[in-house]
Amino acid sequence: MAIRTLVWGENVHEHLNKVVHDTYPEGMHTQIAKLLSSDANISASTATLQEPEHGLTEAILAETDVLLWWGHRAHGDVADEVVERVAKRVWEGMGLIVLHSGHFSKIFKRLMGSPCALSWREAGERERLWVVNPGHPIAKGLPAHFELENEEMYGEPFSVPEPLETVFVSWFQGGEIFRSGLTYRRGAGNVFYFRPGHETYPTYHDDTVGKVLRNAVNWAYNPNNYPDITEAPNVPVDKALEPIVARGQGLHSAGEEGFK
Amino acid sequence: MAIRTLVWGENVHEHLNKVVHDTYPEGMHTQIAKLLSSDANISASTATLQEPEHGLTEAILAETDVLLWWGHRAHGDVADEVVERVAKRVWEGMGLIVLHSGHFSKIFKRLMGSPCALSWREAGERERLWVVNPGHPIAKGLPAHFELENEEMYGEPFSVPEPLETVFVSWFQGGEIFRSGLTYRRGAGNVFYFRPGHETYPTYHDDTVGKVLRNAVNWAYNPNNYPDITEAPNVPVDKALEPIVARGQGLHSAGEEGFK
Amino acid sequence: MAIRTLVWGENVHEHLNKVVHDTYPEGMHTQIAKLLSSDANISASTATLQEPEHGLTEAILAETDVLLWWGHRAHGDVADEVVERVAKRVWEGMGLIVLHSGHFSKIFKRLMGSPCALSWREAGERERLWVVNPGHPIAKGLPAHFELENEEMYGEPFSVPEPLETVFVSWFQGGEIFRSGLTYRRGAGNVFYFRPGHETYPTYHDDTVGKVLRNAVNWAYNPNNYPDITEAPNVPVDKALEPIVARGQGLHSAGEEGFK
Amino acid sequence: MAIRTLVWGENVHEHLNKVVHDTYPEGMHTQIAKLLSSDANISASTATLQEPEHGLTEAILAETDVLLWWGHRAHGDVADEVVERVAKRVWEGMGLIVLHSGHFSKIFKRLMGSPCALSWREAGERERLWVVNPGHPIAKGLPAHFELENEEMYGEPFSVPEPLETVFVSWFQGGEIFRSGLTYRRGAGNVFYFRPGHETYPTYHDDTVGKVLRNAVNWAYNPNNYPDITEAPNVPVDKALEPIVARGQGLHSAGEEGFK
Repeated sequence: MAIRTLVWGENVHEHLNKVVHDTYPEGMHTQIAKLLSSDANISASTATLQEPEHGLTEAILAETDVLLWWGHRAHGDVADEVVERVAKRVWEGMGLIVLHSGHFSKIFKRLMGSPCALSWREAGERERLWVVNPGHPIAKGLPAHFELENEEMYGEPFSVPEPLETVFVSWFQGGEIFRSGLTYRRGAGNVFYFRPGHETYPTYHDDTVGKVLRNAVNWAYNPNNYPDITEAPNVPVDKALEPIVARGQGLHSAGEEGFK
Repeated sequence: MAIRTLVWGENVHEHLNKVVHDTYPEGMHTQIAKLLSSDANISASTATLQEPEHGLTEAILAETDVLLWWGHRAHGDVADEVVERVAKRVWEGMGLIVLHSGHFSKIFKRLMGSPCALSWREAGERERLWVVNPGHPIAKGLPAHFELENEEMYGEPFSVPEPLETVFVSWFQGGEIFRSGLTYRRGAGNVFYFRPGHETYPTYHDDTVGKVLRNAVNWAYNPNNYPDITEAPNVPVDKALEPIVARGQGLHSAGEEGFK
Repeated sequence: MAIRTLVWGENVHEHLNKVVHDTYPEGMHTQIAKLLSSDANISASTATLQEPEHGLTEAILAETDVLLWWGHRAHGDVADEVVERVAKRVWEGMGLIVLHSGHFSKIFKRLMGSPCALSWREAGERERLWVVNPGHPIAKGLPAHFELENEEMYGEPFSVPEPLETVFVSWFQGGEIFRSGLTYRRGAGNVFYFRPGHETYPTYHDDTVGKVLRNAVNWAYNPNNYPDITEAPNVPVDKALEPIVARGQGLHSAGEEGFK
Repeated sequence: MAIRTLVWGENVHEHLNKVVHDTYPEGMHTQIAKLLSSDANISASTATLQEPEHGLTEAILAETDVLLWWGHRAHGDVADEVVERVAKRVWEGMGLIVLHSGHFSKIFKRLMGSPCALSWREAGERERLWVVNPGHPIAKGLPAHFELENEEMYGEPFSVPEPLETVFVSWFQGGEIFRSGLTYRRGAGNVFYFRPGHETYPTYHDDTVGKVLRNAVNWAYNPNNYPDITEAPNVPVDKALEPIVARGQGLHSAGEEGFK
């Protein structure tokens, strides 16, 4: 069965800014989903901020294997309840690919536990992404480096936790570098941050970017899951795997729930 | 100058439960601070939930190098605003040592970005902690293993992110194991989770536990800091380190703040 | 195409020790290959120390996707040249699963860069393996824990580098614990160390152990590769991606090889 | 007591190449030691390839807390026995700072277990090092970035294992990037790789480079140690921490050594 992939787009600047609209007339989310659809192993659909529950209901998330997230201007408009719901699904095993300005999305900050800040410059300068981990599945079939002639600059320090693995590092024309492809695991959920994708440039029309995203979906998909990850079960003394006898005095009566 | 260390205690069960009261008549926080004070390099004070702002005002945190956190029953009573304040100080460089049931504290879950759940049993059983990373500073001067004759059992899976390093793993009499000493870094803040410390047992009267905590304070102390970690500065084109000319069309006017 | 999997067995104790012979009459390697063959995605063959070049010729390795390694008494008899050859294939993308006493094999020590020592006891005691990372592909379909009623004990500290991820931790009846499932990446090669498998016990007749090994082969297989990982190419000035002019005085004439 | 620091220099090009000689008339090792000596907490001495046992006898290493390594042309001339001796001291707790072309030294490759290859260009181009981990002790007191106007380029992929933490990433004028400050731990030994330092440029006369090296020595120093890291002790049944009875048949007689 194909990987059920949902591309979430904020879908705001496409309607406010002529450059963005002209570059992505059907919305960025639609174009990103198109990039994915050339992989027969991926079945891509879309959701946007404006839909009820931002298109991220329990039912929809339950049938999503990998979620891609593009947001920028309206991070604050995403409901906290939806963010918690998405986080839980990631912990349970849904992959998450966070794109570009999504570094400041509520969901990414929620999962990282750190500010996720960086420096930036919007000058349409050249970005060159280097593959620093050529054996990583996300780098499969990529050249040693590839260029985006016009991109926003993101500069270090990028205040995220040390990643599981670093896949890409970017060189910028104006003199900065950035760790532009980072992997994490949270519970059973594989998380990938991928830097490029400023809305005023045609980044999601680029073939190599498309290949990275398709690789990332395949990597992020976890056939395994972890449905009870938020539970903290009590193991009664008489169910202990090795015979023990309760000693000392406790706080809890038998079978009582723990404090959360 | 000594490491300014603050022991935060929930200070609830000491007043509700006779066993806890008898074990820690001056409060667990006071006893933990006593364990630390045998190290001349540590200057320990205490704060509790019941104080204004839980004793964790901006001014107090600004003068704290390392914070220890013991909470259990009243995790939900800690104000979200204080949790954010503590998180920010950790990112800026304050060390944080989270003890036992603090795995479910708001601050630990906030920094981990994962559920931090586990299984448990309150049977006063034997716990034996093994040093799996004998070269780690937190293990300095410890024996290869040490025992707590009566402890609560915590069992895996412990749903935390993969740590920077694993220092201790516990063996339990009833048949479980647990990764009982884990390190993380969030921003400039060193974070250590240390498992033992159930309130009905005399764990914080144990000499070896004291040594672990003193080592942990010394390790967690970061003479470096990172005061602007939450800022996301714009770098104007004319301040670029290499000469560039703005190209294409942007979203932002010159000098404008980014979206958060 | 199925994953081309090679099970390497030292094949010594099977011929010297009656217990080992009776437990594994066709050799441990044969029994391990049988465990794998129930997975239609795996095509398993075997090789042994006694074959020319230990059955690990360039040609054979070139057609191997994942190698499993069981050795104990004869680690020193493995030719250094073959060890280097295997290491190079791992870096290029071949998966490697190191079993039990293979912790002291030349190839594992070569890839870890550390002593890989541990403590041990041969008492046929109970080992209980806990899944500490239930979302990991190697843990797919496993129970929360499983037991081997008779195993050799391995105790910490296990002097290996901090792993990429810890999948299993073992509880031993005699009071020890051990990190019994650890993942690493070296170049493009996924490496998994799995603890159980002492030759005098029927560990490789256990269904759950079989499931772990099949999962591990599927995880270790990397469809990506990194064929030129040992090369250190010079990039001439006139091939630089951004125009530069050579400045200062250098050591090397144009086009000269670097020092290795 | 000051950190006993030994700067090891290959000391070859200083005598063969006029540029190197003029830049480092007393040898690169001497100049690096000078950079360190401004820190009262560091006591620096030197050793070279040409000394008996390369100046790295058992006695000298036993009194060394942190070793810095600069080599290039003569990697192959370092005796394997000395390399093993240094590796053992690192595992036991000696810090190791590997400089520039030392990426291909026997000792670094030995500890990494991977090829440690990279691409390169000797064009005296501009290198700008960015601090990506500003809270790390090695980054203490550094600016956000610093430049070396003339350096050799090293390009990715750098075939080393994923580091414990990434501290610096370099931007190069010719279009490449490089992870130029990486930390590892092997046993009790802290290892830091620092990229700059080509012998024909005055890198070790740079103030900021000096600060990095002094910070790195302070970071690499481990007051803890791990003297028995290569031992694999047998734990007899009658010394088990929990009472057990030997079951099944074993390979080893009581008290026998294990196979290595």
